[in-house]
Amino acid sequence: PPAWGRATQQPPACPPLAPRRGFSNNKILVELDESKGVALMKFKSPPVNSLSLEFLTEFCISLEKLENDRACRGVILTSAVPRIFSSGLDITEMCGKSTEHYAEFWRAVQEMWLRLYGSNMVTLAAVNGSSPAGGCLMALSCDYRIMGENPKFSIGLNEAQLGIVAPFWFKDTFVNVVGHRIAESSLQLGSLYPAPEALRLGLVDELVPEEKLQEKAAAVMAQWLALPDHARQLTKSMMRKAVLDRLAAHREEDVQNFISFISKESIQKSLRMYMEMLKKKK
Amino acid sequence: PPAWGRATQQPPACPPLAPRRGFSNNKILVELDESKGVALMKFKSPPVNSLSLEFLTEFCISLEKLENDRACRGVILTSAVPRIFSSGLDITEMCGKSTEHYAEFWRAVQEMWLRLYGSNMVTLAAVNGSSPAGGCLMALSCDYRIMGENPKFSIGLNEAQLGIVAPFWFKDTFVNVVGHRIAESSLQLGSLYPAPEALRLGLVDELVPEEKLQEKAAAVMAQWLALPDHARQLTKSMMRKAVLDRLAAHREEDVQNFISFISKESIQKSLRMYMEMLKKKK
Amino acid sequence: PPAWGRATQQPPACPPLAPRRGFSNNKILVELDESKGVALMKFKSPPVNSLSLEFLTEFCISLEKLENDRACRGVILTSAVPRIFSSGLDITEMCGKSTEHYAEFWRAVQEMWLRLYGSNMVTLAAVNGSSPAGGCLMALSCDYRIMGENPKFSIGLNEAQLGIVAPFWFKDTFVNVVGHRIAESSLQLGSLYPAPEALRLGLVDELVPEEKLQEKAAAVMAQWLALPDHARQLTKSMMRKAVLDRLAAHREEDVQNFISFISKESIQKSLRMYMEMLKKKK
Repeated sequence: PPAWGRATQQPPACPPLAPRRGFSNNKILVELDESKGVALMKFKSPPVNSLSLEFLTEFCISLEKLENDRACRGVILTSAVPRIFSSGLDITEMCGKSTEHYAEFWRAVQEMWLRLYGSNMVTLAAVNGSSPAGGCLMALSCDYRIMGENPKFSIGLNEAQLGIVAPFWFKDTFVNVVGHRIAESSLQLGSLYPAPEALRLGLVDELVPEEKLQEKAAAVMAQWLALPDHARQLTKSMMRKAVLDRLAAHREEDVQNFISFISKESIQKSLRMYMEMLKKKK
Repeated sequence: PPAWGRATQQPPACPPLAPRRGFSNNKILVELDESKGVALMKFKSPPVNSLSLEFLTEFCISLEKLENDRACRGVILTSAVPRIFSSGLDITEMCGKSTEHYAEFWRAVQEMWLRLYGSNMVTLAAVNGSSPAGGCLMALSCDYRIMGENPKFSIGLNEAQLGIVAPFWFKDTFVNVVGHRIAESSLQLGSLYPAPEALRLGLVDELVPEEKLQEKAAAVMAQWLALPDHARQLTKSMMRKAVLDRLAAHREEDVQNFISFISKESIQKSLRMYMEMLKKKK
Repeated sequence: PPAWGRATQQPPACPPLAPRRGFSNNKILVELDESKGVALMKFKSPPVNSLSLEFLTEFCISLEKLENDRACRGVILTSAVPRIFSSGLDITEMCGKSTEHYAEFWRAVQEMWLRLYGSNMVTLAAVNGSSPAGGCLMALSCDYRIMGENPKFSIGLNEAQLGIVAPFWFKDTFVNVVGHRIAESSLQLGSLYPAPEALRLGLVDELVPEEKLQEKAAAVMAQWLALPDHARQLTKSMMRKAVLDRLAAHREEDVQNFISFISKESIQKSLRMYMEMLKKKK
């Protein structure tokens, strides 16, 4: 590999002491290491980093800030909550609320995916805990996934187990990662895979011991950032454009589909029962 | 996995003694276990379960009956003939017949695939013998494939070995299971894979000792039926719709293609020679 | 597998002594073994078989000759230069030249791919050395890839390392071979894979010891040629048509894209630096 490739890059400003800038909201903590051009985005919404409307809104704002920051070329997503990356969409946002609320919530879910899957930055998921449903989608939307080598951590699009259906763009993202056959049976069964099985299927790219996860993520990020941004961004866009365009072209229709599905009494009943079960568990 | 998922299901009526309903035609035997919501469909058309017009017609009628039967949620396809699942399309239907016959036959092949690939039920192939060509297509069209662990059993779309071409919807179904690269070389070479190789390529999902096949099929079916039907059906349709729509939109064109190909003197001569060879083998 | 399949083939004329016809240009040597119907096409453009305008033009003429020669049913691509299959597109053709030259060069690259990926013959790459970028594309465009079992040989679409972007039809060809996930990260990282890793990813189909490579290639070719041409050709076309048509429909647009990208001062500067580096290496 010619060192030459790096020449098209603007060398990052490299002062004697690496400056770190950060910003934090309620749910997400961001630390930007300007010397490396890398931001660490930590989900800190206990108990399970569920993707509430507030979380999603903060996520989009944070990501956009980084996207527009010339000092930032890559972002690592990880969790500040032990043993959970993200539990996925917040069920309370989908239960007993108004049609307007459902619409607002679903648009925020779409927005999160459109921004993350379409990000110009290098995006890397350091999956340091379980990651079902929407949490899995966030990991799938990154360029690369490293998971903690803990057989208790599981990952997958398990929506079917809750009686709900992953929308077509969850499916498209999933197929792009694991192929059609695995996506088809996984989505129907709502399969959650323990880390080793997730690796075998290509659902994650690498497993490392938990205590090495952040270090490894930084090393992989450096490898991706060794390449010129411009060619990488054009390439990424070429790979993902068809799938991104598909949601962009059917966004409002997808919102309406969600509303009419989630408003069904049978689905509402199921979600209520599920939440009762979760409460009793505590 | 939350037991909750099952709550959206109507619990199947579960009387003290499990009632079994069955119906049988010339070529296919169907046993429905109402307590489980599972039908076993056994191909019994010796010597090789070839897909004749009569077989295909019976298959479609049987499948439709089950599809419309609220007591049936899943179907297991298997063979009552030793060592062969199905040998594929019946060559006598494609040889020395009228154009009208070819058209009728091909429409029946299309109908079989459209109904099976598009079935709302959980479909499972318990492949208890070899399964070339059209036999392989039937297995590929199910949701899941379990094959007997016998290295003498082989499976594949081997049409090219007979000098004929698998139509685009065979190809689409195949690509969805094994991916583009394997499908491309397999279809060109007419490859038949022994069971262990079929497993390695993902052409079947699981191998089990022959004597455990039916038991395992029942267990896997129970696992699929543990999930709510509605979400599963919507998900399955989302995965398969593009490919199903493609044949639906070009069905008559596909019939005409088949007729003009099969009517060629060179193809007819090949098929006659092949049938002569089969007769001598007996 | 019925020996019958072969019956639709015209048996090749098989005289007592196998006649070999050959033709040679500056850059490529072709030997046609009429008894087998197989041509061996050897790249002989030291030091690295780079794909110059002249090389590409000779390649297309040679391939067309064979395509129109009824005595030729298959072609094996290999290198006459030690340790390198082909280094890919000749950078001197893309650096400091006129817009007209860039257009002519790019049309030749397109032409090479359209003819090779769309060839009616069985095409086999005997990859007896490293094969980056355009060299990898040539291998990917064949029906089958056998690589020398030498861990120093590497293969991949590493354009990103030079700050340039593989066009969409390189990408389509790559996705058809290795699937979306591997293609996406490989293209962004400009990954070059050592032979064993290339095998694991499906980027090549088989590894053999270097000294057995030509023998193995001949054996695999014989296996492909055992099948009737007509069905194989229709099948190949069915598998590749969508991707071929895509470039055919956007060919001029793709030329303009290339020109405007390659004419950028930043890209020209990068290419000049890269060539300087290569010169110093000598």
